[in-house]
Amino acid sequence: MSTFMGELLGTMILILLGDGVVANTVLKKSKAEGGGWMVITTGWALAVAIPVYIFGPISGAHFNPAVTIGLASIGKFAWAEVPMYIIAQLIGAFIGATLVWLSFLPHFEATEDKAGKLAIFCTGPAIRNTTTNLITEIIGTFVLVFAILGIANTKMVDGLSPLVVGGIVWAAGLSLGGPTGYAINPARDLGPRIAHAILPIKGKGDSDWGYAWIPVVGPIIGGLIAALCFKMLF
Amino acid sequence: MSTFMGELLGTMILILLGDGVVANTVLKKSKAEGGGWMVITTGWALAVAIPVYIFGPISGAHFNPAVTIGLASIGKFAWAEVPMYIIAQLIGAFIGATLVWLSFLPHFEATEDKAGKLAIFCTGPAIRNTTTNLITEIIGTFVLVFAILGIANTKMVDGLSPLVVGGIVWAAGLSLGGPTGYAINPARDLGPRIAHAILPIKGKGDSDWGYAWIPVVGPIIGGLIAALCFKMLF
Amino acid sequence: MSTFMGELLGTMILILLGDGVVANTVLKKSKAEGGGWMVITTGWALAVAIPVYIFGPISGAHFNPAVTIGLASIGKFAWAEVPMYIIAQLIGAFIGATLVWLSFLPHFEATEDKAGKLAIFCTGPAIRNTTTNLITEIIGTFVLVFAILGIANTKMVDGLSPLVVGGIVWAAGLSLGGPTGYAINPARDLGPRIAHAILPIKGKGDSDWGYAWIPVVGPIIGGLIAALCFKMLF
Amino acid sequence: MSTFMGELLGTMILILLGDGVVANTVLKKSKAEGGGWMVITTGWALAVAIPVYIFGPISGAHFNPAVTIGLASIGKFAWAEVPMYIIAQLIGAFIGATLVWLSFLPHFEATEDKAGKLAIFCTGPAIRNTTTNLITEIIGTFVLVFAILGIANTKMVDGLSPLVVGGIVWAAGLSLGGPTGYAINPARDLGPRIAHAILPIKGKGDSDWGYAWIPVVGPIIGGLIAALCFKMLF
Repeated sequence: MSTFMGELLGTMILILLGDGVVANTVLKKSKAEGGGWMVITTGWALAVAIPVYIFGPISGAHFNPAVTIGLASIGKFAWAEVPMYIIAQLIGAFIGATLVWLSFLPHFEATEDKAGKLAIFCTGPAIRNTTTNLITEIIGTFVLVFAILGIANTKMVDGLSPLVVGGIVWAAGLSLGGPTGYAINPARDLGPRIAHAILPIKGKGDSDWGYAWIPVVGPIIGGLIAALCFKMLF
Repeated sequence: MSTFMGELLGTMILILLGDGVVANTVLKKSKAEGGGWMVITTGWALAVAIPVYIFGPISGAHFNPAVTIGLASIGKFAWAEVPMYIIAQLIGAFIGATLVWLSFLPHFEATEDKAGKLAIFCTGPAIRNTTTNLITEIIGTFVLVFAILGIANTKMVDGLSPLVVGGIVWAAGLSLGGPTGYAINPARDLGPRIAHAILPIKGKGDSDWGYAWIPVVGPIIGGLIAALCFKMLF
Repeated sequence: MSTFMGELLGTMILILLGDGVVANTVLKKSKAEGGGWMVITTGWALAVAIPVYIFGPISGAHFNPAVTIGLASIGKFAWAEVPMYIIAQLIGAFIGATLVWLSFLPHFEATEDKAGKLAIFCTGPAIRNTTTNLITEIIGTFVLVFAILGIANTKMVDGLSPLVVGGIVWAAGLSLGGPTGYAINPARDLGPRIAHAILPIKGKGDSDWGYAWIPVVGPIIGGLIAALCFKMLF
Repeated sequence: MSTFMGELLGTMILILLGDGVVANTVLKKSKAEGGGWMVITTGWALAVAIPVYIFGPISGAHFNPAVTIGLASIGKFAWAEVPMYIIAQLIGAFIGATLVWLSFLPHFEATEDKAGKLAIFCTGPAIRNTTTNLITEIIGTFVLVFAILGIANTKMVDGLSPLVVGGIVWAAGLSLGGPTGYAINPARDLGPRIAHAILPIKGKGDSDWGYAWIPVVGPIIGGLIAALCFKMLF
């Protein structure tokens, strides 16, 4: 399998399971409705860990432009491959979000709440404020990318590191996810937002494009700062 | 121990713990009543992981006809053994469900809700719709079987893979379990449904046989697609 | 350290953390009040896993007469050592329960509920019925001891098995703990019950000695059946 | 990187994620508001485990004066390095708490509750009582430090021990955290308390300096007792 296909399929599974856990808890009549923050954050943690197991040996399992760009910025990944990786991630995220829609089809019909339906696909601010929303995404992604670089630097027996990466995502959500819904990944937000805009979802509202740049720019800045700090410090 | 016995006993423990967590949270006066989606999905994850530890070296720990058939379809398991595996799984699931009934005997009497009592044994749709219920089961089982094949393909130290398999089941439930209760395993649904029909459960309702084929056919289709995709891609 | 001391201290930590999580969620004004079944079962799982790490190499980390007797019954532990192990377990459980009382001292005063205070120390039936309560404890302990024997039989890298043992306890509680509070360990129940009877706990009720034999006899029967089945099958 | 920098950055991440999870669940309009004890304790467990992975090989990953002093008291750490370690831990904790404030900026404005805002930074007693609050912190830290020493003593493959340390912190919170909010670490409490006093937090109350010595003295006593017991016993 090509690295392109690895990133595409891995991000597809990431979004199928990640957006899936939001759909599962948000949509009406779902047996998991109202499952709460523990369900959502555990779902996203596993949504990352599982495709890291499968596609790590193939593409390095970035699934996240903030990781790809961060690694490239410190010479740990070839800049020439960055565009293809990001395209694969966006396509994978788009397909993953479409599979979530298919998995919960009648529940989208049963749900009135337009904001809830959008929240399945992409993040939004709890309190809308460009500066603070950016800060939150920068700090969250800083922790994510710094910790990923940190654990890649330590000795670990085979098969453990995807679990630990999942743990980092779990922590990011549990601890820092409340103000913006922790995109901390431009592809995770933009790909499914495009899906929301395109798919014929029953009773959907607008896709909040005014906010869409923040979960793209914030995570990239956070990833770059993390990579530079890591290079300076280690 | 024979592979037949391994599959039988493993599926028995899977269903004892899996149907058990539903009984524990659904039945009246249980100390875990109303435990919620986190309790249910964590219970099912461990319900798979634990017998995988014990019986993995004996039978490969399928416990699931969708896995058995999926593996056979790509030459990773002998077709000749498929029928015996499925029979063992169904018998094990039947016995496991019976043990759940024995463990919660007075709580079945204390509970009026007929649908709740059925839900302990087998899955049912949150919104009844043949097409969408099938789609949900197909996608859920696709993720399950694809991920199991994926992690079997990676390097992992001894003793870690049953935990990761449990993590896959955890993810399937957390993220995709709400619309149909995630059977993703024909034996998990059919064996206990037969037990529900046969056992003299106090105040039980009908066993919803009209739905019974969906959690059999959907998972088998999902498992086949996953196996074929995996073979094509890897 | 002697095996006696290992069992004593290990069971002490088991009960300090295990009875602790019940106190934490049951007692008035505790920050964890009403934490729910997920908190309680996760607490008990770690309450077992942590002392297994510390004392496993010293005493084998039984902490449970049902395990000790089960192992002895199939020749995996010397009968001559059984009495001393059980005495150590009971003393450790007594001290652990006393430490819980000291940790939550003002909260015992702030709490009226006599049954809640007793529930911190020992188990009680959700629906009182000698036969069914015994069955529940037998099945729960059967799973515990059979699974412990099963995983001891598999290849696992150093440092993983205490986590898996914790996972088994997690599963037992999540799935089968509701009807009787899952003693599945005579020392876990009897030692703290004696502490409840002796300690000058503010506003305590009686120690429910009429039930006390069930979480002793049930687990021993369950452990014996598990050990014999295991020996026959493997 | 120096050990000083390792302790500083590690404690920074510990507090960013640990105080973060409290902010996430306590502050108004956060998507995780009201997440509950499971969210809080899981967040703190990962808040410890992740920097232990990153900085363990550099500084030993104490992040806690009770650990540093405990180790020194039994000759496992040089007394000469103790002051610098503690200074690094306090500075890191201060910066971490500042990053939490920045991550949740508009939510501090949206929240009236002064006690809730203080609770993000430092611990406080559920029932104020010098003696019992000290006892709770001593017992909690005893378990933490004794268990850390215990698992350091066992054989474990590379990459597992930070997870187990996280598990110990999880257990301490789940089981013993309710009466005092489980500081069990003087730097975790004092550094952020100083941040609370200094930072221009909207609508903050006083920093409860009258209580501040208890989560400093209690954990140090608990850590010393644990270290001495460990040395005597092992």
